[in-house]
Amino acid sequence: MSQLRKDPISGRWVIIAGERSKRPDDFRKAPEACSSEGSGFCPFCEGSEAKTPPEVFALRPGPTPADSPGWQVRVVPNKFPALSRGGPVPRNGEDLFVWMDGRGVHEVVIETPDHGREMADLPVDGLRDVLWTYRERIRSIERERQYRYIQVFKNKGREAGASLSHPHTQIVATPIVPKRVKEEIYGAERLFDRYGECVFCRTIRLEVERTERVVLRGYRFCVLAPYASRFPFEMRVHPVRHSARFADLQDEDLLPLAETMKSVLLRLKNALSDPPYNFLIHQAPNARMTLNGGRPVSIDRSFHWHIEIIPVLTKVAGFEWGTGFYINPVSPEVAAETLSREHSSGE
Amino acid sequence: MSQLRKDPISGRWVIIAGERSKRPDDFRKAPEACSSEGSGFCPFCEGSEAKTPPEVFALRPGPTPADSPGWQVRVVPNKFPALSRGGPVPRNGEDLFVWMDGRGVHEVVIETPDHGREMADLPVDGLRDVLWTYRERIRSIERERQYRYIQVFKNKGREAGASLSHPHTQIVATPIVPKRVKEEIYGAERLFDRYGECVFCRTIRLEVERTERVVLRGYRFCVLAPYASRFPFEMRVHPVRHSARFADLQDEDLLPLAETMKSVLLRLKNALSDPPYNFLIHQAPNARMTLNGGRPVSIDRSFHWHIEIIPVLTKVAGFEWGTGFYINPVSPEVAAETLSREHSSGE
Repeated sequence: MSQLRKDPISGRWVIIAGERSKRPDDFRKAPEACSSEGSGFCPFCEGSEAKTPPEVFALRPGPTPADSPGWQVRVVPNKFPALSRGGPVPRNGEDLFVWMDGRGVHEVVIETPDHGREMADLPVDGLRDVLWTYRERIRSIERERQYRYIQVFKNKGREAGASLSHPHTQIVATPIVPKRVKEEIYGAERLFDRYGECVFCRTIRLEVERTERVVLRGYRFCVLAPYASRFPFEMRVHPVRHSARFADLQDEDLLPLAETMKSVLLRLKNALSDPPYNFLIHQAPNARMTLNGGRPVSIDRSFHWHIEIIPVLTKVAGFEWGTGFYINPVSPEVAAETLSREHSSGE
Repeated sequence: MSQLRKDPISGRWVIIAGERSKRPDDFRKAPEACSSEGSGFCPFCEGSEAKTPPEVFALRPGPTPADSPGWQVRVVPNKFPALSRGGPVPRNGEDLFVWMDGRGVHEVVIETPDHGREMADLPVDGLRDVLWTYRERIRSIERERQYRYIQVFKNKGREAGASLSHPHTQIVATPIVPKRVKEEIYGAERLFDRYGECVFCRTIRLEVERTERVVLRGYRFCVLAPYASRFPFEMRVHPVRHSARFADLQDEDLLPLAETMKSVLLRLKNALSDPPYNFLIHQAPNARMTLNGGRPVSIDRSFHWHIEIIPVLTKVAGFEWGTGFYINPVSPEVAAETLSREHSSGE
């Protein structure tokens, strides 16, 4: 099992080793060869169901049995989980060395049986089914109570960290609220106190007025190039109506969200020759939080869920690791202008 | 000129565009070809001095004129600076959109005239000269007063963000204390209050007793695999004697530090087939800081400079961007054991 360890100075937690443990020799590699895909076998393809752990969920249009062909979307536990299921665990250790057993959930959402059909190329109702599946898994894992945060994320392309190219998303539930999420929640609460409204709602209103950083403005969803974008062509997808929780997404919002995601992922693909990317959903945690003085954070009114889309076009380097500053060679105004005029056809 | 922008929610600053500005087409690339180095011309090689901005500093054993051959270490302004020199600038903007002109310093330390001689392969006194140069540049830039932090960092290898392969380090001075540095300083101050001693001094003492995460223990410098390492084979180099500022490094410490750096960089090279890496120096800022209540932070007693060495062996992906958690597939105990028994010959 993996171990969660806390850095005493920064308060940052890390997940050490476990099932993903590697030997030093795993990193000794021959000079990079011009290979594309490796062996050709894919455990996520239809017909290879026995090569994954048993499914925890699947969308099956017909009456086909679990772990057999016939699915549209399939969810399985990660074979090499970063965190493993189990009961709540105490913090251990002493002095500067604090740790917990690596308890949590690590699942893979296989988005389609079709190995070569990336999310941008799914039909809109296929993408809606994927989003529906995210929502169902979040609701189900939240009912287990002992996990504090659920991170849904996608790594597309080797440079973005994907080890398998078959389209998939990952869901990790953690026993603590992660640092990045805490920062956003405390920041949003502080700004709610200042402005008397949700800072995401305010951002959407001000940006739509200014127009220059708007990539796409729909009735239910709005896509912005963030004012302080860290990365070239970074985008943020917001529901227009205030909501802290992805799990509260209404059925009638699923298709518009699928259309929005398909549109911006296609624009990205067309504008930048199909770049690798990450996306991640930021949502309210499954836990109460308090401010320094003990006052509870009103997460549901001050936080607003969103999806961050991060194309992988530059390297994170020494300056970024040292400072936490990012150097972005493309302004969000140029990014929004490029992406908003890009056509989004691709089927 | 570039622009510094503040993300209102996280408080994180980014540097947008400027001299490094790119067009979307710059990111459209052909499928990756098996090329190694590009054109073959290098502006950092001896004889190409006219291809860089005029040098601001050079170590020249003989009486050779500036911007001509004959140097051992040469410092030039970055031709495509992230930040540009100039007077102090105010914060501008309103509401959620705060920015400053991108004022600062961005220099390149060319470590050797020899294109192919990486830092690990420099003779120890050559490496001492590079460290001496860092110290001199830090002292000189700190005298200018208007910059609050000086980040010294090295990107080795394309995967680590280097755009030129000739061995070089970068120095960036910023007009504000960066987020990551603030976090470390506040964290260290909080732990000073708890333990009544510098947390880095305490870490060194406890780790040397426990031995399992010690890579190298010298009389003046100690190299650890951090307890909560984010990355495989991450290392931290600490001066054993408490000191908050790299600029206060004594002359007699330069050679031992050069020996330490050479030893661990060679171990890394030998153990992992010459991986790309970043390193960065974390030191006290050139500014006063206060805690929430207004009490000044006693940086000089609670902070302790160090060098973080980060091999680039894994990808930062959606989970890391979403949570700030890192998944590390190699425990620091395995890393320390591997690196401490690795021989460090290489000349």
